[in-house]
Amino acid sequence: MKKYCFGIDVGGTSVKCGLFSAEGDVLDKWEIPTRTEDNGVNILPDVADAINRKIEEKKLDKEEIAGIGIGVPGPVNENGEVPCAVNLHWGYVNIAGDMERLTGLPVKAGNDANVAALGELWKGGGAGYHSLIMVTLGTGVGGGIIINDKIVAGSHGAGGEIGHAHVEDAITDPCNCGNCGCLEQVASATGIVRLAKEELSASEEQSLLREGKISAKRVWDAVKEGDALAIRVAERFGEYLGKTLAVLATVSDPQVIVIGGGVSKAGQILLDYITGPYQKYAFSACRGTEFALATLGNDAGIYGAARMVL
Amino acid sequence: MKKYCFGIDVGGTSVKCGLFSAEGDVLDKWEIPTRTEDNGVNILPDVADAINRKIEEKKLDKEEIAGIGIGVPGPVNENGEVPCAVNLHWGYVNIAGDMERLTGLPVKAGNDANVAALGELWKGGGAGYHSLIMVTLGTGVGGGIIINDKIVAGSHGAGGEIGHAHVEDAITDPCNCGNCGCLEQVASATGIVRLAKEELSASEEQSLLREGKISAKRVWDAVKEGDALAIRVAERFGEYLGKTLAVLATVSDPQVIVIGGGVSKAGQILLDYITGPYQKYAFSACRGTEFALATLGNDAGIYGAARMVL
Repeated sequence: MKKYCFGIDVGGTSVKCGLFSAEGDVLDKWEIPTRTEDNGVNILPDVADAINRKIEEKKLDKEEIAGIGIGVPGPVNENGEVPCAVNLHWGYVNIAGDMERLTGLPVKAGNDANVAALGELWKGGGAGYHSLIMVTLGTGVGGGIIINDKIVAGSHGAGGEIGHAHVEDAITDPCNCGNCGCLEQVASATGIVRLAKEELSASEEQSLLREGKISAKRVWDAVKEGDALAIRVAERFGEYLGKTLAVLATVSDPQVIVIGGGVSKAGQILLDYITGPYQKYAFSACRGTEFALATLGNDAGIYGAARMVL
Repeated sequence: MKKYCFGIDVGGTSVKCGLFSAEGDVLDKWEIPTRTEDNGVNILPDVADAINRKIEEKKLDKEEIAGIGIGVPGPVNENGEVPCAVNLHWGYVNIAGDMERLTGLPVKAGNDANVAALGELWKGGGAGYHSLIMVTLGTGVGGGIIINDKIVAGSHGAGGEIGHAHVEDAITDPCNCGNCGCLEQVASATGIVRLAKEELSASEEQSLLREGKISAKRVWDAVKEGDALAIRVAERFGEYLGKTLAVLATVSDPQVIVIGGGVSKAGQILLDYITGPYQKYAFSACRGTEFALATLGNDAGIYGAARMVL
């Protein structure tokens, strides 16, 4: 019987590490820097070193360790390989193979957004369910799809890349991905700022947003104050996101849709603006799909990574 | 070692039955009528009877039969139950349980469109792949999603209901599902007729479609003749379908997209109108996704049903 596992979340500046019990309790949690120099050649050896030292420090028996789960910011295929990961300065890396060699433990690797979705399903906003769509609203829009407790990695590592669903023909400036009119351009923190600027320049109407630098947080604060212009921004955001989720639900038909990322700190009011349009556009059988806020914050990645090997 | 299995495709007027070898060769194929009277209470007993008689006729040993796969027109959950199936006049039916009781063989049941998708993946247009999106363009638009050789049934039995993805805000008359602006309303055979009528009434332009009753087949025939108005219809159809498939690919990121149904008899030219818009709107990693025409026609259902139990 395996008693422990490691959950690792590799980010562009730091690597979050967790030692978990087989029940999913965090026994230890720490961070190491991500050394991206020299094409990130040190990243996996650094992680392996951190794990090996933790095993020594805690006097763990390797026989009792189920393995290491690891999430990275890039398209990871089902063999644990990534063709490239821009933020880590990586070209092709066989994450699972390299890490197994460095630690002598079984390793599973996945895309960080997909892995975070698995974490939220296991111990977060989607706990108790087996299938979910997770949307992470931050600087960009990340996504992860889980079906029957398994990540949908996709045949090109693009499973769950819902931030790049095309939603608006009228947008002619390119998204970071190169396309125009992606969900990310209207539903991320920067997308919400875009919508607010459009509303502000479309009229002379008074608004709390007329003064100072606009941010997604200020938009949601203004919504809570009853600011009519900010409410229009929230409605447009909700229409884009709710409608897109209704389309995506015709593919995977999840039990629950979980909304996370910095923007989700606005709380329940955010869900209220999404669920109305969702229900309007959803296929009848999916109209009652649950919505929930993510609860694990920045720890979703290490939870999901641990879950992959349990 | 199991040598045989049965693949059954229950339709509203007839039930297609197939006896397969474990390698997927059709050893026998026949049809029986679907008796929908009395809330369809005879349908499964009729099917069981047909199977039991075939076993007797062919002198098969039940020990050598892997089981029975069965596709039905309705939302089937993973336990092989359906809450209702309008075309069969069924309320709740435990298909797998009832059929196992009636035949003494293992039974798996699925939604007919999803099962047909599995058939095309196994022996048809998607052969050699493991994940696909299948679109069936007939009177309506059916769909099926396969990931890692498994049907995505969905938590409400609505997995792959891509005909009811919302694609057009401007449509205000309802789809059969009750919503407005579904893919089915613009990309099915009837949807293509809708687009043709719109183009015809928008101008006085000469067209082969000015005379006689418009059908999807006549539209594609006119496209092949170089009819400018028909070509605009094909472009609009391709833009709707290609764009929607690009969005759906951000969820499941399939290896191949297979187009079937009566409309697909137009052939390669149909794919040509879809792939351009698909590539324009697809996330970069999915831009090279293969497209193929379905090849099994009305037999896709029995193939997929057989595959479920092998």
